[in-house]
Amino acid sequence: MSNFTPENADFAERVRSSFESQSIMQLLGARLVGCEPGRCIIELPFNDNLCQQNGFFHAGVTSTIADSAGGYAGFTLMPANADVLTVEFKISLLRPAAGELMIAQGQVIRAGRNLTFTEVTVSVGSHDNMKICASMSQTLACITR
Amino acid sequence: MSNFTPENADFAERVRSSFESQSIMQLLGARLVGCEPGRCIIELPFNDNLCQQNGFFHAGVTSTIADSAGGYAGFTLMPANADVLTVEFKISLLRPAAGELMIAQGQVIRAGRNLTFTEVTVSVGSHDNMKICASMSQTLACITR
Amino acid sequence: MSNFTPENADFAERVRSSFESQSIMQLLGARLVGCEPGRCIIELPFNDNLCQQNGFFHAGVTSTIADSAGGYAGFTLMPANADVLTVEFKISLLRPAAGELMIAQGQVIRAGRNLTFTEVTVSVGSHDNMKICASMSQTLACITR
Amino acid sequence: MSNFTPENADFAERVRSSFESQSIMQLLGARLVGCEPGRCIIELPFNDNLCQQNGFFHAGVTSTIADSAGGYAGFTLMPANADVLTVEFKISLLRPAAGELMIAQGQVIRAGRNLTFTEVTVSVGSHDNMKICASMSQTLACITR
Repeated sequence: MSNFTPENADFAERVRSSFESQSIMQLLGARLVGCEPGRCIIELPFNDNLCQQNGFFHAGVTSTIADSAGGYAGFTLMPANADVLTVEFKISLLRPAAGELMIAQGQVIRAGRNLTFTEVTVSVGSHDNMKICASMSQTLACITR
Repeated sequence: MSNFTPENADFAERVRSSFESQSIMQLLGARLVGCEPGRCIIELPFNDNLCQQNGFFHAGVTSTIADSAGGYAGFTLMPANADVLTVEFKISLLRPAAGELMIAQGQVIRAGRNLTFTEVTVSVGSHDNMKICASMSQTLACITR
Repeated sequence: MSNFTPENADFAERVRSSFESQSIMQLLGARLVGCEPGRCIIELPFNDNLCQQNGFFHAGVTSTIADSAGGYAGFTLMPANADVLTVEFKISLLRPAAGELMIAQGQVIRAGRNLTFTEVTVSVGSHDNMKICASMSQTLACITR
Repeated sequence: MSNFTPENADFAERVRSSFESQSIMQLLGARLVGCEPGRCIIELPFNDNLCQQNGFFHAGVTSTIADSAGGYAGFTLMPANADVLTVEFKISLLRPAAGELMIAQGQVIRAGRNLTFTEVTVSVGSHDNMKICASMSQTLACITR
């Protein structure tokens, strides 16, 4: 699944630049930590502003970094004049998202001209003990201008 | 669909108290504006910290208020000793979420002993001109201690 | 949600013709019973060949008529040279699908040039006592040749 | 993900017996071809009664064998007095399902006491050239009597 060839040699620079323009990533404290053709990884350290009622990461926060990880995984394979929009996603919350760090890994499973499908795995825990806590299935649209 | 009888007469107070303990709601600036048996409404005014790369509400932000609106719609019908957790949700992003205000309306469509199903409609725009921008389908678990 | 104007005056004839070419509908015994702009209704009488392990309609059978009801709801609004394909759907199974008749009602909630979103409600029971048993959220692609 | 220990030593026999009681599997012509702890594989040879309007496998047929493959993957890990019901699933249709054979492989990704999450990959083609055509994410309920 990982031998994708990007249409645009500057894909990593374009992902980084777009990520930096997503103001919500700064509000949450999320960091782009990996970007390859068809893949993207985003990390989010825990802080007290990101919680649901039990003090765990809110499912919407999990979804936010997962949506961007999947979206940028898809964006790496899109042409230089394209923008990416999420059409829909589904997320399953396998465990309470309790831990000091959350990592979302997005992976393209099918890249088409107009539509791209990704899967995102989210893990939570501490650096040496991460567990899968959520799984997302996402559809992206490639918008060319 | 809206003639539900809550098991717990204090449902509105419990929803409000739980909402106030969700720190992410304060970080985003979300407000609980409606709560009836089987229904919950959350509003979020636009601000520059909530955006994706085009300056619209990020899909994860939309998902965050929708997840809480659906979750609290379900919570209104749960017994006093219960907590609510999201099992999974799917969200379809019907339009770019561009506007000064976003409103998520959660509605229970089936309340069971262990599992509750909700649907959440999210609108965006200005107070006198709101358009549906997203639709969520959600499964909740009722956790009793 | 129901004041859609079809691009193609022959929409009902095209839906009927396409429905008749779906051989699985005949294998199951499904009937097209309603078709308006943005809406489509499919009925399926119970028979002993459609069951899961408890003798109820199998969730895949429910999904099959729901997928076609949503797909044809979207197809009513597509241009004459278009074909419709399902991109993805999610179905929530609210109750066991036990009864002598199942009815799937598809409704467009957003029709775009390339992508259309629908919701499908499936009811089960007897003619004078139908209950909602499933709810589907679906994305369609409009393929023009 | 595959080192699950079944609670019930007879899991394979129980899966086979339940599969044989699903009459829709016989109507479609589906066969149970693999069953291990946390995994299940179902095959379906093409025939002219399983089609959508272009002569490919109908998405509902794909969903039917995928739903059973995921459901039985989960069932392998449930106690002897339990039954399995599908709560919901989402399926993404990555490619047209054109080919002489379809294979659905279900895999448990998280088994809980009440809820189990699975993922199902569906491939289509000929025996020596299968391609992924669909991906399902599913939630199951374990019902104990």
